[in-house]
Amino acid sequence: MTHAREILDTYPGTTAMDAAALVECIEACFDCAQSCSACADACLVEQVVSHLRRCITMCLNCSDVCATTGRVFCRQTDFEPAMARAALQACAEACRLCAEECERHAREMNMEHCRVCAEACRRCERACSDALSAVGA
Amino acid sequence: MTHAREILDTYPGTTAMDAAALVECIEACFDCAQSCSACADACLVEQVVSHLRRCITMCLNCSDVCATTGRVFCRQTDFEPAMARAALQACAEACRLCAEECERHAREMNMEHCRVCAEACRRCERACSDALSAVGA
Amino acid sequence: MTHAREILDTYPGTTAMDAAALVECIEACFDCAQSCSACADACLVEQVVSHLRRCITMCLNCSDVCATTGRVFCRQTDFEPAMARAALQACAEACRLCAEECERHAREMNMEHCRVCAEACRRCERACSDALSAVGA
Amino acid sequence: MTHAREILDTYPGTTAMDAAALVECIEACFDCAQSCSACADACLVEQVVSHLRRCITMCLNCSDVCATTGRVFCRQTDFEPAMARAALQACAEACRLCAEECERHAREMNMEHCRVCAEACRRCERACSDALSAVGA
Repeated sequence: MTHAREILDTYPGTTAMDAAALVECIEACFDCAQSCSACADACLVEQVVSHLRRCITMCLNCSDVCATTGRVFCRQTDFEPAMARAALQACAEACRLCAEECERHAREMNMEHCRVCAEACRRCERACSDALSAVGA
Repeated sequence: MTHAREILDTYPGTTAMDAAALVECIEACFDCAQSCSACADACLVEQVVSHLRRCITMCLNCSDVCATTGRVFCRQTDFEPAMARAALQACAEACRLCAEECERHAREMNMEHCRVCAEACRRCERACSDALSAVGA
Repeated sequence: MTHAREILDTYPGTTAMDAAALVECIEACFDCAQSCSACADACLVEQVVSHLRRCITMCLNCSDVCATTGRVFCRQTDFEPAMARAALQACAEACRLCAEECERHAREMNMEHCRVCAEACRRCERACSDALSAVGA
Repeated sequence: MTHAREILDTYPGTTAMDAAALVECIEACFDCAQSCSACADACLVEQVVSHLRRCITMCLNCSDVCATTGRVFCRQTDFEPAMARAALQACAEACRLCAEECERHAREMNMEHCRVCAEACRRCERACSDALSAVGA
């Protein structure tokens, strides 16, 4: 449960895009930031941690990029499409790279945290693509 | 909708506290980080922005502290109670200060974004207090 | 004074690019993250804060993007050029947009904090461009 | 080289504490955020990464807490001593815990990145203690 929709509905100005797409973008970014931090941590406790270096790096990067992108979209006042596009492109790429790495570990090593994390990454990648269309890429 | 519960359930080690309290703490922190970023932005677009300086500062601080605390609790590997306590105390205080400021603007100026933000802050303050009890303050 | 060069020199692996360019990129990102947070705050205390909404939004966005990019470059283990490029492109754009806005206020309104912030943004924009060349854009 | 002193000197209001202590606190926080991110990454590439789990967790936590505290002190507008104290206490604790862990690896395993990181942590712990005295703990 989050307040994302409710607080956006109280915004006193005009939002830069359709409310549903905006809320999904913000929620997907914060959710992915959380999942990626948790997956990096779960990788760290695994016995085969030395095989998971790339996964940890991808997760840490993706978590930071998603948290930043989520915040950029919280800022609707003097919303700048060029800034939005740059953030969305970086975020979609971070999510794609992290999802691919996590999906591989889910498939080959049965890592459940990687499976869940990849889901959060793919959802966020999609939300960023949709937001890019809405902003006008 | 978030993956917080699902990814926590896949953690390969033992979590430092009851899963329900942990998930609520993590979700409340990320939610409050989002609401506070959005409320600072909504304050900025208000015509009376010069009356909202303290509210913007409180929201920006609270957003950063909540995002950090949420991440600290994503890290269950070699979880350190002393670190957890320090983060929770800072977070509960940031949420309390921000909630008080927002509640005043909700009451006196009918600011709906402040009302919603205060709700997110009070939820997070409560979750931090509960987590403090669980960690052993 | 920072430890950026010293800690990079102790990295046990091979860094993805020339040490001097890497250190400048990391230092410029963290410096710009700091300057932009301070400039947003200085704008907020100005009497003409209602004229500075766009500047505050640009500064808050730029601060977040720079902090994230600085961290991505701290991570040399399994460094992924595609991730680096995406982060650098977003960061160079955030810095350019923020610098343009701050330069205007420095010029037209004599705002000294905007003049200093624009310097930090232009330095970071340059460092990101140089790093993009080094990574292979 | 950072712009921290220069931008603080242009602040149009009155800062909450002595400029020298404030600049040192801000610079030490951003420097420690950077060093801790780099040390976590250097630990990750080590062959004995499974012995460094606690170090990585401490570094990731300390990096987040320092970045947040550095930002809180960039915000001098409507500076709230209670918020400052809470952030400083959490930050001093995060730095102390991370420094102790890193010093152990520097001493017992000759890890140079841990030695440098511990220096950055101890500097930041000191700066937070000094700032706590200045704010009035």
